[in-house]
Amino acid sequence: MENNFYHTIYGINNCISYLKSDFFLESSIISINNKSVASKHKELLAILSQINNVKYFNSEKFKSKFNFKHDQGIVITFKGSLTKEINDINHFSENSCYLICDQINDPQNLGQILRTSECAGIDGIILPKHGSVHITDSVIQVSQGALFYSNIFIETNLNNTIKYLKSKGFWIIGIENSIEANDWYAMDYKGKIAIVLGSEGKGIRNLVKKSCDFLATIPMRGKINSLNVTAAVSAVLFERQRQLQSINKI
Amino acid sequence: MENNFYHTIYGINNCISYLKSDFFLESSIISINNKSVASKHKELLAILSQINNVKYFNSEKFKSKFNFKHDQGIVITFKGSLTKEINDINHFSENSCYLICDQINDPQNLGQILRTSECAGIDGIILPKHGSVHITDSVIQVSQGALFYSNIFIETNLNNTIKYLKSKGFWIIGIENSIEANDWYAMDYKGKIAIVLGSEGKGIRNLVKKSCDFLATIPMRGKINSLNVTAAVSAVLFERQRQLQSINKI
Repeated sequence: MENNFYHTIYGINNCISYLKSDFFLESSIISINNKSVASKHKELLAILSQINNVKYFNSEKFKSKFNFKHDQGIVITFKGSLTKEINDINHFSENSCYLICDQINDPQNLGQILRTSECAGIDGIILPKHGSVHITDSVIQVSQGALFYSNIFIETNLNNTIKYLKSKGFWIIGIENSIEANDWYAMDYKGKIAIVLGSEGKGIRNLVKKSCDFLATIPMRGKINSLNVTAAVSAVLFERQRQLQSINKI
Repeated sequence: MENNFYHTIYGINNCISYLKSDFFLESSIISINNKSVASKHKELLAILSQINNVKYFNSEKFKSKFNFKHDQGIVITFKGSLTKEINDINHFSENSCYLICDQINDPQNLGQILRTSECAGIDGIILPKHGSVHITDSVIQVSQGALFYSNIFIETNLNNTIKYLKSKGFWIIGIENSIEANDWYAMDYKGKIAIVLGSEGKGIRNLVKKSCDFLATIPMRGKINSLNVTAAVSAVLFERQRQLQSINKI
């Protein structure tokens, strides 16, 4: 399976997220800088005490082995797949929401999107096999561990994926800077939906856009007219949360 | 005045934003890589044709002078102040909104916040003099030119600034992860308001928090419980836009 690579992650939050997640593998190699971690990080130490395979180094040796800027004294290497198959999922709950990222190119952006999506209760993120950044170590790092609590799907043909989701009762909403689009908050984000985002420069590809049931836009109120895709994701996903929470309170 | 430094900016969007803005100074030094820019960027060439002081280089010379990753063949150096004084502003319009960033540390985050704020029609961004990243070249670069259409204020004492804004009829809303806070969408963002954000790790400082009239929070729906401050800004500022646009439509 694709993405069954060696991954190296570092930093307290990122590593704790990994160690507590279902992705954690016994075969992982966990390297610790005694001086940085000892006594300071009780949660981490408690987790490590239950794991074999932890290698403790003194500061000098740790620094000679690893050269990451913000490792905070912990580096983990593991081999494994961080992606799943959308076809394996047969049951979609009532308010399922999937994010389809049509050719995001920047690992920073994808990492931030994963982080925001996890915080906003998104059920999965779908990336195309071609023309998109995938799950690199930078993406994992920027996601701050969100990736280990996310379902990531890499699909050969997004149009087929959209057809599959439609067959399961999903509505597809594309986020696009277009005059035919409705304001983002005028959409109904309740029920089973998939939200489609385009690439940083070019937006959603034409064929994918045609598969969308609705197009939504976030009108710009300034002069530069260039909202970052990660900011657009946040505005849309928390508008969905607003709508879901508002129903629950009625 | 503080921040009257030399700044170096690069990249087509960033530089066009600068050249079209009121910040543009005749004394700026504009360096162009003939090969990269010639004929490809009509808007930029039209602007440059009306400016003296443009230095054209062949590719080799340009590359030997500048070493930026994504310069796209244009680098501008200028000396000037990019900040203003809040006390100079006497008139605040009906739906004015200022963003107060209490000790943001990461230039990436500040740059993204500036970019999102400009797109969301914010009137100004207020930073404390101490304990905060200021307007560095990285911040300008990440803001993608948004900074040149923003009002940036650097204030010695945020509590005094908040008092000043209150005396002008502003309500102050702090965004804080706290059980006493209301859901972010339950706030009224209409009228004159200032929105206060805390630093990435520590949130809003206690004294500043006490000056807030309201506290709002964005509940997390996942496991990592760590929304990036830039994502929180986007969710809140576009919720404000939703509220403002909804009134206009009644």
